[in-house]
Amino acid sequence: MNKWDQDEFKRELIKRTEKIELVIQAYLPKEEGFQKTVLEAMNYSMLAGGKRLRPMLLLESNRLFGGDEALAEPFMAAIEMIHTYSLVHDDLPAMDNDEFRRGKQTTHIRYGHAMGILAGDALLNYAFETMAEAVELAKRLPAKEYYPALERILLAQKLLAKKSGIYGMVGGQTADVEATEKQERLTPEKLDFIYHLKTGALIEGAMMAGAALAGASPDELARVEELASKVGLAFQIQDDILDVTSTAEVLGKPVFSDERNQKTTYVTCRGVDECRRLVEEISKEALSDLSALGGRQNEFLRQLLIWLIIREK
Amino acid sequence: MNKWDQDEFKRELIKRTEKIELVIQAYLPKEEGFQKTVLEAMNYSMLAGGKRLRPMLLLESNRLFGGDEALAEPFMAAIEMIHTYSLVHDDLPAMDNDEFRRGKQTTHIRYGHAMGILAGDALLNYAFETMAEAVELAKRLPAKEYYPALERILLAQKLLAKKSGIYGMVGGQTADVEATEKQERLTPEKLDFIYHLKTGALIEGAMMAGAALAGASPDELARVEELASKVGLAFQIQDDILDVTSTAEVLGKPVFSDERNQKTTYVTCRGVDECRRLVEEISKEALSDLSALGGRQNEFLRQLLIWLIIREK
Repeated sequence: MNKWDQDEFKRELIKRTEKIELVIQAYLPKEEGFQKTVLEAMNYSMLAGGKRLRPMLLLESNRLFGGDEALAEPFMAAIEMIHTYSLVHDDLPAMDNDEFRRGKQTTHIRYGHAMGILAGDALLNYAFETMAEAVELAKRLPAKEYYPALERILLAQKLLAKKSGIYGMVGGQTADVEATEKQERLTPEKLDFIYHLKTGALIEGAMMAGAALAGASPDELARVEELASKVGLAFQIQDDILDVTSTAEVLGKPVFSDERNQKTTYVTCRGVDECRRLVEEISKEALSDLSALGGRQNEFLRQLLIWLIIREK
Repeated sequence: MNKWDQDEFKRELIKRTEKIELVIQAYLPKEEGFQKTVLEAMNYSMLAGGKRLRPMLLLESNRLFGGDEALAEPFMAAIEMIHTYSLVHDDLPAMDNDEFRRGKQTTHIRYGHAMGILAGDALLNYAFETMAEAVELAKRLPAKEYYPALERILLAQKLLAKKSGIYGMVGGQTADVEATEKQERLTPEKLDFIYHLKTGALIEGAMMAGAALAGASPDELARVEELASKVGLAFQIQDDILDVTSTAEVLGKPVFSDERNQKTTYVTCRGVDECRRLVEEISKEALSDLSALGGRQNEFLRQLLIWLIIREK
């Protein structure tokens, strides 16, 4: 990728991120009624910034398989709700006990501890309500496409639920929280489990749900899962590298947090140089997997994966 | 209902509850892997007892409309997971701060605060994974019934999600938590909102999802919602009455808890006698609604509603 390509990609990235913001906003609840506070807390956490990486991967994976973007939109909003609920609960005093995220007060600091719990619950629940909206959109399709669309919606829901839950993100969080509480020195096996599930699973869910909505075959879904798993791992190792090589100003969050929390990471296990080599190796594999996916092309997705892995924040 | 009828009903109730226990157990996760602790905490909370009222209402409503029971089973397990997650999170220190429930330690006391949060999240998420299992069961139906079954599954999921979320249970919890924190004297309007959503909504969700899975029409669903709403309100007012008229031994939980927490309830607003009259009036209406539901009959459901309302614990 030459200099001009990078600039072009960055402009496209900004444009597409702005479009995703509009999709997300369209699915947020109105702040009214006796339950107004939880609605405000949900929207506060949803609009606190972020790369919108998961909805973007969902959409681009959907495009890779020639999907109907309209059907993907509620799922894009939903996966960001799932990601956001996990951050809101992670920040609670009993978990990571963080008062700031991306330079803003965390949800429970802003709205109180109980509301932090409820806003997280509400977001997870609302993610599934939002996915259900896809059925209304399917009704607008030509009659013969309606039932197959329902089948795809159900599959995408199932994939996202699985990748968010005990065999996905929550499973990874559990092992991570326990290891942190016990200040456990992680075995490579357990470290891989945590990396694979805590961050990787939702990236897999994003790309698989996008592909499933576009009608990808089981074989294609398995290959998307494999590709997304590599992207998730490279992304996470890059996170560890940035924690020890970047500055708080660039990252927008404290650096050396892993060391301070005495966390086992890829960097503490293998050192920065070895990690850089690993990121390069895994990302090359991922890009090769992407090229091999049935000859279909999505140049933006290719550049997005490169950007995710070489990112500096 | 004469004495013999009551005994017969009680035997049938025990038998059917035992069957529901087996259904629930069949859908609980295996306690294995690096995420074992959260799986144990989920199962601990799910197996801590309870009337299994919501799955029972879901099943009996499904039967009322002649539904395929097999398809209802994952939904029965799922609604109990949703109910249980709400109890686990309600018991947290930042919410009701309860150390015991039904004579057993609450989940966060037994497994730690962080695991209480994660087990609740895991149960809510797993509820949707479990509902997705209904698709596998639909594949066993005759080919021409497959797609219509998918449509019903999606509708039942949507109804449960809505009744559990910000326009249902979580909405009610929010208003309740806020009012309790502020020791607010509730207006009748707000009290009705809380009663309708906090307890009522999930009972509506149970009966509507059961009916939807059986192919009930939109008009029938609206009537089931109305009926369930009355059942939920009578059930909740009965709860308030028992809080001031029963004993901790009978109830299995402390009495006069509303007074101690300075909570506005139907009883504090209208007194015990007026509440007893209200319960009778609302339950008569509910039973009349049930009889009017298209001439279809489910005698067990009729007796179940009576029992729920005249229960002593």
